[in-house]
Amino acid sequence: MQVAFVQMEPRFGYPEANLEKVLAMMESKPAELYVLPELFASGYVFISPDEVAKAADKVGDGLVYRTIADFAKARKCAVIYGFPEKASEGYFNSSLFVDEFGNHKLYRKIHLFFEEKQYFLPGNSPLGTIAYRDTKLGMMICFDWIFPETARCLALAGADIICHPVNLVMSYCQDSMKTRSIENRIFTITANRIGEEKRGDKGFKFTGKSQITDCEGNVIYRADVDKEEIFTADINIEDARNKRVNDLNDLFGDRRVEYYNRLGETIDGIHQ
Amino acid sequence: MQVAFVQMEPRFGYPEANLEKVLAMMESKPAELYVLPELFASGYVFISPDEVAKAADKVGDGLVYRTIADFAKARKCAVIYGFPEKASEGYFNSSLFVDEFGNHKLYRKIHLFFEEKQYFLPGNSPLGTIAYRDTKLGMMICFDWIFPETARCLALAGADIICHPVNLVMSYCQDSMKTRSIENRIFTITANRIGEEKRGDKGFKFTGKSQITDCEGNVIYRADVDKEEIFTADINIEDARNKRVNDLNDLFGDRRVEYYNRLGETIDGIHQ
Repeated sequence: MQVAFVQMEPRFGYPEANLEKVLAMMESKPAELYVLPELFASGYVFISPDEVAKAADKVGDGLVYRTIADFAKARKCAVIYGFPEKASEGYFNSSLFVDEFGNHKLYRKIHLFFEEKQYFLPGNSPLGTIAYRDTKLGMMICFDWIFPETARCLALAGADIICHPVNLVMSYCQDSMKTRSIENRIFTITANRIGEEKRGDKGFKFTGKSQITDCEGNVIYRADVDKEEIFTADINIEDARNKRVNDLNDLFGDRRVEYYNRLGETIDGIHQ
Repeated sequence: MQVAFVQMEPRFGYPEANLEKVLAMMESKPAELYVLPELFASGYVFISPDEVAKAADKVGDGLVYRTIADFAKARKCAVIYGFPEKASEGYFNSSLFVDEFGNHKLYRKIHLFFEEKQYFLPGNSPLGTIAYRDTKLGMMICFDWIFPETARCLALAGADIICHPVNLVMSYCQDSMKTRSIENRIFTITANRIGEEKRGDKGFKFTGKSQITDCEGNVIYRADVDKEEIFTADINIEDARNKRVNDLNDLFGDRRVEYYNRLGETIDGIHQ
């Protein structure tokens, strides 16, 4: 399967321009699956609930959705992108899978980072997979990576590729995604943004280095820290179906679930 | 707390010589806690059940235990070491914590690697912690690292330091232990062996690079691939008690346990 990440610098409050840029990048390189950054059309640093409300779209509605859906239909491909979602309960930091058949599947970020907690509700999506052509895709968003349970649950559900829209501000993630590949024998596609976004007295510098890892944790390609770029790779999905480390070890079959009972424990705040 | 790893090359079948070497190394550098490699006194590449039976000791018995216990008492410290354990049910690949007060605590490796499955029973130890001075220690052995559940359960049980005797033959682990630190905000001490061990038509080359990581995944020190060495570091246990990533995120408090239900699923062999 030909997969791609798009690394770009959104301009806050200019969704049309951001969308146009991403569209041109995707048109320049054919792929079957594109992964775009978290909140790629809106920008990241919201400083009021009104801004979120203004930027948010209902699932399957709005300019961003229609444009991406038209692209997927015309190019016979799938796209995964991050967007601020307007729902009946409130707003979520979400990602959407859209394919050429008009299907779409939603994921709402379950682990919110920092001040996202002030503007978004914690996600309520089960960690399931999406069937597309001969693959099963799992979606997670940015900070979800630091909780090993996220990628693990997606892999146990059968995900071959973890599609990972991000707006990373810390430097840990990219190397840790190699571990996510190794421990689950899955591909990962991390699509990050670049640039600095300052709004009032708030702001972040984003870390770029979008990457694709193979099932053994090798980085197939890692982008620069500060260049817009689309990268495509041809990956063999069968590699993710074989969980064997050697003739006698299988990463999933060797799990000792009966000893993992603490994973179900909730610990509030600092541990005891 | 002053902690240490010992990286050394055991000679198969010469437990007295291996023990003597390790003792001299430990005597050369004072520490409060020493972590030695997996199966450090026996060697690793068993080629018959008789060899395991000959090398194995009951918990709290045998030359290795008595020598280590005497050292801990004399030097007022604790030592964690790997050994082949003779139990009533059979043989386990185990590690033992021994301190100056004559306490000892056992861990039996729950995830066996490759042909260890032919000689050892899968461990049946709960993933709990050991209180020593002002710290809580968690033990895991070698291949346990690739299952994120192991370190996670130990950390959720309150482990400040993961003490990790290993005989590593793959090259993945050392970098992945950085991820184990990051995702759990814990220290890790990985004590590996070096050298090549050939026995009949079997053999392994071990990868050295024993290391200590801090709670943010930084490598405090990593040893060479092929040199015997003892390294000590002074670590501040309080760092492991603070699970905050920032003012609004707590690594344990932010877990969304209700979405992790697949972690309890058993999947036999290749996934569906």
